[in-house]
Amino acid sequence: MTAGMTTTSIEDVDSTVKAGHAAFEKGRTADPATRAEWLEAIAGALADNAAPLVETAGRETHLATARLEGELKRTIFQLRLFAEEIRQGEHFDATIDHEDGEWGMGPRPDLRRFNVPLGVVGVFGASNFPFAFSVMGGDSASALAAGCAVVHKAHDGHLELALRTAETVVAALDAAGAPSGLFSLVTGRAAAEALVDHPLVKAIGFTGSTAGGRALFNRTAARPEPIPFYGELGGINAVFVTESAWAARRSEIITGYAGSFTLGMGQFCTKPGLLFVPGGHTAGIRATLAQALAGFEPAPLLSERLHGGFREAVEHLRANDAIDVLLDGDFAAEPSPTVLHTTSEALRRDPSILHQEMFGPASVVVEYGDQSELPGLAELLEGQLTTTVHAEAEDDVAELTERLADTSGRLLWNGWPTGVTVSYAQHHGGPFPATTSNTTSVGTAAIRRFLRPVSYQSFPADRLPEPLRDENPWRIPQRVDGVWNRPVRESASRDVEQEVGA
Amino acid sequence: MTAGMTTTSIEDVDSTVKAGHAAFEKGRTADPATRAEWLEAIAGALADNAAPLVETAGRETHLATARLEGELKRTIFQLRLFAEEIRQGEHFDATIDHEDGEWGMGPRPDLRRFNVPLGVVGVFGASNFPFAFSVMGGDSASALAAGCAVVHKAHDGHLELALRTAETVVAALDAAGAPSGLFSLVTGRAAAEALVDHPLVKAIGFTGSTAGGRALFNRTAARPEPIPFYGELGGINAVFVTESAWAARRSEIITGYAGSFTLGMGQFCTKPGLLFVPGGHTAGIRATLAQALAGFEPAPLLSERLHGGFREAVEHLRANDAIDVLLDGDFAAEPSPTVLHTTSEALRRDPSILHQEMFGPASVVVEYGDQSELPGLAELLEGQLTTTVHAEAEDDVAELTERLADTSGRLLWNGWPTGVTVSYAQHHGGPFPATTSNTTSVGTAAIRRFLRPVSYQSFPADRLPEPLRDENPWRIPQRVDGVWNRPVRESASRDVEQEVGA
Repeated sequence: MTAGMTTTSIEDVDSTVKAGHAAFEKGRTADPATRAEWLEAIAGALADNAAPLVETAGRETHLATARLEGELKRTIFQLRLFAEEIRQGEHFDATIDHEDGEWGMGPRPDLRRFNVPLGVVGVFGASNFPFAFSVMGGDSASALAAGCAVVHKAHDGHLELALRTAETVVAALDAAGAPSGLFSLVTGRAAAEALVDHPLVKAIGFTGSTAGGRALFNRTAARPEPIPFYGELGGINAVFVTESAWAARRSEIITGYAGSFTLGMGQFCTKPGLLFVPGGHTAGIRATLAQALAGFEPAPLLSERLHGGFREAVEHLRANDAIDVLLDGDFAAEPSPTVLHTTSEALRRDPSILHQEMFGPASVVVEYGDQSELPGLAELLEGQLTTTVHAEAEDDVAELTERLADTSGRLLWNGWPTGVTVSYAQHHGGPFPATTSNTTSVGTAAIRRFLRPVSYQSFPADRLPEPLRDENPWRIPQRVDGVWNRPVRESASRDVEQEVGA
Repeated sequence: MTAGMTTTSIEDVDSTVKAGHAAFEKGRTADPATRAEWLEAIAGALADNAAPLVETAGRETHLATARLEGELKRTIFQLRLFAEEIRQGEHFDATIDHEDGEWGMGPRPDLRRFNVPLGVVGVFGASNFPFAFSVMGGDSASALAAGCAVVHKAHDGHLELALRTAETVVAALDAAGAPSGLFSLVTGRAAAEALVDHPLVKAIGFTGSTAGGRALFNRTAARPEPIPFYGELGGINAVFVTESAWAARRSEIITGYAGSFTLGMGQFCTKPGLLFVPGGHTAGIRATLAQALAGFEPAPLLSERLHGGFREAVEHLRANDAIDVLLDGDFAAEPSPTVLHTTSEALRRDPSILHQEMFGPASVVVEYGDQSELPGLAELLEGQLTTTVHAEAEDDVAELTERLADTSGRLLWNGWPTGVTVSYAQHHGGPFPATTSNTTSVGTAAIRRFLRPVSYQSFPADRLPEPLRDENPWRIPQRVDGVWNRPVRESASRDVEQEVGA
């Protein structure tokens, strides 16, 4: 690891990546139980150091202690869930086709395939989740679970926390006997570019802005050897309310919306940035919003830079003639909520309104004339991490949800998109610009991003990697001649304990 | 479909893609049994039309009838295997997490994920497999199996066959009741570029040269909305022979090598282009090669253009001072085999020798001084579709095979890389420049390339897509709260009948 608050030189990036590659080579044949212990060692060390880490994070990010404790708990849980997942061995996707002289296209040799880790992965931390999407966040945890080495590019917004977290992780891995160099940290923009360009780096995980992510995506695509760029870039997270839901629960919906778009000062990539509602109730919406947000406690945004970007984005939309102001937030050091307002007709004239993310406590309410407009409005959206429908039992919204499935990674029913659980079925992704891939950065499925398949043809039994052996020494799921064979295991997901020291 | 031998205009590409998108929208909710019937209808129509299709293919490609019949049989088998695979429903990766108030990071909502098709896929046909990697080859079959629409860009090398095949496919889909426009064909370079650029095209499948593939990859990456480019670009397919294997089976190995690198006039992406053997037997190799190839029957290469490229590639290597000629092939209209020769020492001085593909009946024999050099030589290779080891039971080649797994998609033991079976465990891929992705273009796993996940949160039971319902109406595998539940089905892979009319 490159210590100190200074930025990492390009030479140091090179030696860090090479050390990561050496550690990857030493560690990649570790059995799943051993690798799971490494993840659990990190989880334990983060739990043991929760109090000072949360204190540092609070100082650097202005986020509330309870929020940071919850985020750290999530981060620790994620490591333990991934440990259990790789013990089960789903990620190997082990597939065995025995020799078959009667195979329909002609004799088939013995052929066996499983997934192997890619190598060194570069992970770019996010500003808004100093734990869960940063040093030991979802990208790092899934890359380590896959068997990769990680070089983490620290976000400047919480550099001290990044360094302390990295020290904790490195010490935990050392103590657990993992190869030295399996995880390390670099800082600074030049280091970031050198990381993306390094020939031994085989994938990038990124959480951040669309502009920054696209620039790095372009950079990976332009490498002599292109590599996957798993960028989670953000979104607008449109919410659609049907006429009957509006009639039945107008006040409840506005209150839920107010809570969701201001949660964490609106600095979530899943913040609802658009609310589509039936027209004709502007004054009522304003009144209910004011009431719902009466107890709002302003806090500083994550950084001066984000604060400037937030103000600029809101001002850009406010300057649009088709937009008026429903709730007039201020832009002091601790901004208060802004709610803008427009109509579906205006959006159809100028769909660019739909593409403007405001990273902070602001959102746009759109009044529509008739519910039949909704599928067409959904088609105007760019790729989304989430979209939400509020509807009643009698509503026919099949066409709307079909359009939303086209455009988003996660669809919610009568809920709010903030809050992204870490589980087997989670998909935190979506069409561009939500992400730059068809994968997820949250949940156990994220592990697959950092693996690639290799097949072995006609190998002697004792030369095969363990996951591909008939006797199945690691007791993992194997698809044998087309039929899955899953050794019975205790389902351990319930046993992933919640242990957070904070 | 755009008929006639003229090239497709950009306007026609637009209307073809739009028709494909409309067909995709109509067809995507078809149940797996219905979609499987569409694939089987295509398979049946190809079998019924085998004789005229093979005749046309032979005329356009100069490939032998038996070879073409085998390729068509493979193509038909592949469609039937994929039909059975989607009936089983593995490709949905259906995952259900029930609501769980005790989830370790905090209460978990009901969350369910499955894979949905991407939309319209552009498929670029290969020159060297007029059936298996062309109009209704692996990319088209897997995209249709996934539920996508396909717009196929015909290869100029067998345009009449492409048009006839497409007519057969379109008629079969129509008769089976598939939405009109689900499959179509375009021709010409301008159409190719328009296809890659079209906003409704959501992925590209490509089999072809590294230069052409890289150019199209760059083009997809530069789109406003980047899309996956699944390019299978080729490779050298190095073969490593240990000292004891060489001592035990020298003549057998040289004979197998001669057969493999000249198979189909050496026009396979899995042709062994490099053979590493112990030094000191140059004269013997020459003699055995000459003997093995005595009965070689020259045939024209696939096209004049490929013939020119082949000659150029061989001449480029022959011009290298470090290379001499073991078998002096000629470059007449029907070329005879060329075998070049160099040493491991020369390769270390000039590794570019390792990167020169010769698409035709030519290969390079490399003599090494000591077996311990092999892992280091393997490290000099670029990404490979395959690599092969010839070794004896007592050989320790663990380090070599580890290096080869780093660099290749499929490792073979005491075999030859030509011949790529279509099965569950097949991986026809590999690090760049073998491919531009971490996926396969052959085997059932190829279907996954054309799918993306979508999650549904807190949806009412009767609003969920069929694959995500607790009652599991399609009887597909579902991972429920972390545990896979696979309804028992007859294993049908044996039932995929071989019916080829030819």
